[in-house]
Amino acid sequence: MKLDILGSGPQRTSTGTRGETVPTVPSAETAADTVDVTSLLERGRTLATPVLRAAVDRLAPPMDTVAAYHFGWIDAAGNPSDGDGGKAVRPALALLSAEAAGAAPEVGVPGAVAVELVHNFSLLHDDLMDGDEQRRHRDTVWKVHGPAQAILVGDALFALANEILLEIGTVEAGRATRRLTTATRALIDGQAQDISYEHRERVTVEECLEMEGNKTGALLACAVSIGAVLGGADDRTADILEKYGYHLGLAFQAVDDLLGIWGDPDATGKQTWSDLRQRKKSLPVVAALAAGGPASERLGDLLAADAKSSDFDSFSEEEFAARAALIEEAGGREWTAEEARRQHTIAIEALDTVQMPDRVRAQLVALADFVVVRKR
Amino acid sequence: MKLDILGSGPQRTSTGTRGETVPTVPSAETAADTVDVTSLLERGRTLATPVLRAAVDRLAPPMDTVAAYHFGWIDAAGNPSDGDGGKAVRPALALLSAEAAGAAPEVGVPGAVAVELVHNFSLLHDDLMDGDEQRRHRDTVWKVHGPAQAILVGDALFALANEILLEIGTVEAGRATRRLTTATRALIDGQAQDISYEHRERVTVEECLEMEGNKTGALLACAVSIGAVLGGADDRTADILEKYGYHLGLAFQAVDDLLGIWGDPDATGKQTWSDLRQRKKSLPVVAALAAGGPASERLGDLLAADAKSSDFDSFSEEEFAARAALIEEAGGREWTAEEARRQHTIAIEALDTVQMPDRVRAQLVALADFVVVRKR
Repeated sequence: MKLDILGSGPQRTSTGTRGETVPTVPSAETAADTVDVTSLLERGRTLATPVLRAAVDRLAPPMDTVAAYHFGWIDAAGNPSDGDGGKAVRPALALLSAEAAGAAPEVGVPGAVAVELVHNFSLLHDDLMDGDEQRRHRDTVWKVHGPAQAILVGDALFALANEILLEIGTVEAGRATRRLTTATRALIDGQAQDISYEHRERVTVEECLEMEGNKTGALLACAVSIGAVLGGADDRTADILEKYGYHLGLAFQAVDDLLGIWGDPDATGKQTWSDLRQRKKSLPVVAALAAGGPASERLGDLLAADAKSSDFDSFSEEEFAARAALIEEAGGREWTAEEARRQHTIAIEALDTVQMPDRVRAQLVALADFVVVRKR
Repeated sequence: MKLDILGSGPQRTSTGTRGETVPTVPSAETAADTVDVTSLLERGRTLATPVLRAAVDRLAPPMDTVAAYHFGWIDAAGNPSDGDGGKAVRPALALLSAEAAGAAPEVGVPGAVAVELVHNFSLLHDDLMDGDEQRRHRDTVWKVHGPAQAILVGDALFALANEILLEIGTVEAGRATRRLTTATRALIDGQAQDISYEHRERVTVEECLEMEGNKTGALLACAVSIGAVLGGADDRTADILEKYGYHLGLAFQAVDDLLGIWGDPDATGKQTWSDLRQRKKSLPVVAALAAGGPASERLGDLLAADAKSSDFDSFSEEEFAARAALIEEAGGREWTAEEARRQHTIAIEALDTVQMPDRVRAQLVALADFVVVRKR
């Protein structure tokens, strides 16, 4: 049992130290325990990255350079860099997706690349809209190259994603592009909800989950169906794979929300208390506010005052730490850890309703386990 | 001969008064003279607008409202408005495109809507990148609803364009989407060039034409092929229709560049000397700079000084008028008018190499004539 991230219960999470192992999933023993997730992620990266780089090379200057900076292939001065290209969960899923339909993993590569392009289109635009200055331990594109390039290169990556798929020219490629478009629309809906929630005093847990399903669930779902669709899978199979991916995405996001408050900046590449600084109505916050009780009420009063405060931008570490402690005391941290476990379970159970090679099934389970134990 | 926009020669354009009939195409007498262009544009608007509105209604709040404002269907306060929705040249072309392939005009409607969505996606993003505050006589979306909504709703319209086409589910729809994607990539390349040229002291006429081909030619080309492709036309026919559309786009843009300096603000909905205020390296400017001679050199010195001037933003009407007069004296206005005529001719000649009903051919010619005589 390797899963040890979401904590084994309240007694673990009550220490609340930032950067410590966060919250936990005790899940059933499966063949997943023998899967080497690092190799799976590595395979996704190895097969998809050259095709992704070739796609980005199609962009006209200076967009190719700006995109290469965003992906971490060069630094701000234009020198080659082996920067952090992210966890590469989506490419790994897209290749397994092809295999789930009985196709070779290579069949999933254009899907992996298209999903990565859409994911990074959304990062470029979201970082600008949200005013985020850091991503993957480096200054964001709008900080380095200006807002216009962030908009433009984001647009270009979105267009490129469709181009990569449609140039395959098959009926399957058209179906895959349609699924990617649906996921992209959900992604945009989620960002719209995220922005509007930041201006509201209260957001319900249901609204937050819907937003996170749009922002994270939909594209992970597409990553898990796109390879299968390119490999000729029918819509029912693709839909079930998407169900696994969607709930995996919700588990992923619940963990992200925990890391966004209690994550170790050295591991996440974000500022301390990152989500609190941005007034994000993330799951721990909305769950804490919905919980009731003295800590919940004190937190509510504090956040309401913060929303009107002109000093917010100069808050000290201690002021954010105090808010994090109240979120934890009101139960928001444990509720979110439990939600991650719940979504992880739904994701894995969805796989039971579709036929696929045992090895692929074990690998998908192992990836789901990985998603909830990661620290960055 | 109705064409009287591009002036009949230097003696006409030398008055240079803003808002006056700008520059002229004396083209051969054709059946086009009997075509009612107003009705053609009206038909495009009548058939495409309800489908466009239904598509925009799919957007989640507040994006649906922001988009409705952008399209002129509501005002900034949210009240219904019959604002200026643009000239609607592209929808008219998309319906004629279907008819060129022998299909009913209705077959081109999803194509018309998809092209309009992509066009407006690019307007939303470009206005923000360029800092343009006015479009179609109203404040731009980023001015009214903020930069984040301009980015987000632009993204949503782009995604919606693909969705509208791909949900048709046919092989033809996949081909149409691929052509639209190619056009969108060109659009983005053109905007990248446009931005980079604003920071350069000199841009060649060739670079300017390439940029304008990307920014305007490619999507007009797609409007003229997309209906035909949806109607089952082969790639050769679609390519020829795109050639007509591409050169029509270049003619259109040359006229736009004339209107951008000498257009009547009441007709264009833009500020006086709009393109000069934005330091646009538009065709009249680059042609004047390339012409040589005293006026050309004085213009070059002046623009070079302007580029370094900290007072540029507070320049008076007279200062811009002086620059416009130099551009005209150096021959930039007449060269651009001649270029519009040249592109108009190439566009119309392309139609000779493809079979289509005579009525449709005459209508395409009439639309080309309209594009070069418009005042807004």
